[in-house]
Amino acid sequence: MRPFVFVNVAMSADGKISTAERRQVRISGDDDYSRVDRIKAESDAIMVGIGTVLSDNPSLTVKSPDLRAWRREAGKDEDPIRVVVDSRGRTPPDADILHRGAGKRIIAVSRAASPETLDVLRRYATVIVTGDETVDLSALLEELYRLGVRRLMVEGGGTLIWALMEKGLVDELQTFIGNIIIGGKDAPTPVDGTGSFRDEDFPRLALIEADRLDEGLLIRWRVKRA
Amino acid sequence: MRPFVFVNVAMSADGKISTAERRQVRISGDDDYSRVDRIKAESDAIMVGIGTVLSDNPSLTVKSPDLRAWRREAGKDEDPIRVVVDSRGRTPPDADILHRGAGKRIIAVSRAASPETLDVLRRYATVIVTGDETVDLSALLEELYRLGVRRLMVEGGGTLIWALMEKGLVDELQTFIGNIIIGGKDAPTPVDGTGSFRDEDFPRLALIEADRLDEGLLIRWRVKRA
Repeated sequence: MRPFVFVNVAMSADGKISTAERRQVRISGDDDYSRVDRIKAESDAIMVGIGTVLSDNPSLTVKSPDLRAWRREAGKDEDPIRVVVDSRGRTPPDADILHRGAGKRIIAVSRAASPETLDVLRRYATVIVTGDETVDLSALLEELYRLGVRRLMVEGGGTLIWALMEKGLVDELQTFIGNIIIGGKDAPTPVDGTGSFRDEDFPRLALIEADRLDEGLLIRWRVKRA
Repeated sequence: MRPFVFVNVAMSADGKISTAERRQVRISGDDDYSRVDRIKAESDAIMVGIGTVLSDNPSLTVKSPDLRAWRREAGKDEDPIRVVVDSRGRTPPDADILHRGAGKRIIAVSRAASPETLDVLRRYATVIVTGDETVDLSALLEELYRLGVRRLMVEGGGTLIWALMEKGLVDELQTFIGNIIIGGKDAPTPVDGTGSFRDEDFPRLALIEADRLDEGLLIRWRVKRA
């Protein structure tokens, strides 16, 4: 038993999520910004990898006062549970994700994280330990399900999305394709990692819908079960 | 004066054109295959980079007998002029592109290519020399225009497309997005290279159309002039 897992990502027309130096570039526009805020508010938890925390320092809070009020009235925290996948416990204690907004934080680490590090992080977040060297994502998702998470949004980055894809743990992919070329063979993409699928293993998708949004396209794909 | 330049590329839903080992993966289907054959037949020349020649050994011929006949009846060679951008003259003399199909071949080199290499290549192709270390793409396009090329199709790879994009030499981008995840931080993408655009330099696109094709999407973008 695990939550429904969907990935949301904005990429350039050539498949990049930022520049080679991990500099963020405005890929989408206001309509996509509102859409992302809404799907965030509709989720029970939102997950990012440690690379994204270190490079972007996101807070991942719901921005719209209406959506925050809507969550409050439904008896929920104003922000969904924010989950960092952080095998070695490198989340900075002053990261925005630990301090901005309301609601629970979870830092998912492996047994490779030092006890001292965890002592610090436990001041700000619930720490879930799975896996020896890296987080056991299947076990983590099961634990999130036990904590009541039914709908999990994954915001990136490419290394975490790769790890989830590799384990067959993604149900849906929402890709905003922006009207920009970023370029760069070392620029991060929506699915990075080793890319070590064998021929029969590549995840296949079913196109749910594609619609114009802002100056680009929003594409929704369902991940087919192997 | 240069030809109209359009890039045609098939990428996975996560923006890859092959695996990290440059292994080709079937990204599109029969309908896209026919479409690519048609736009190839409608072009005066088709261009690839040396990396693509070395990894894929493409012939870049028009496959459909009907389209070949249509070109013949229009007084053209059955295949468009095939152009390899190959700064150092590394095209293997037995490459398919030099031997399969009808029509002219051009190998575009820089002055860094050795005279001995060029002597060999001249047996199979017209050699155009521009630039000191790398091909001067603007000069090459002007030369192609003088040779009668009005419509140029660029088939990749990512390094050549980057070089053209960087110089503002692309008019249109046709991207087929397939229903597959390839993944891999080192996998080639449609636009590789250094990715060294500064903030104001990123090419911006205008969406012409997006349509379902095979199990994926065909997107046509116009590149806005800076």
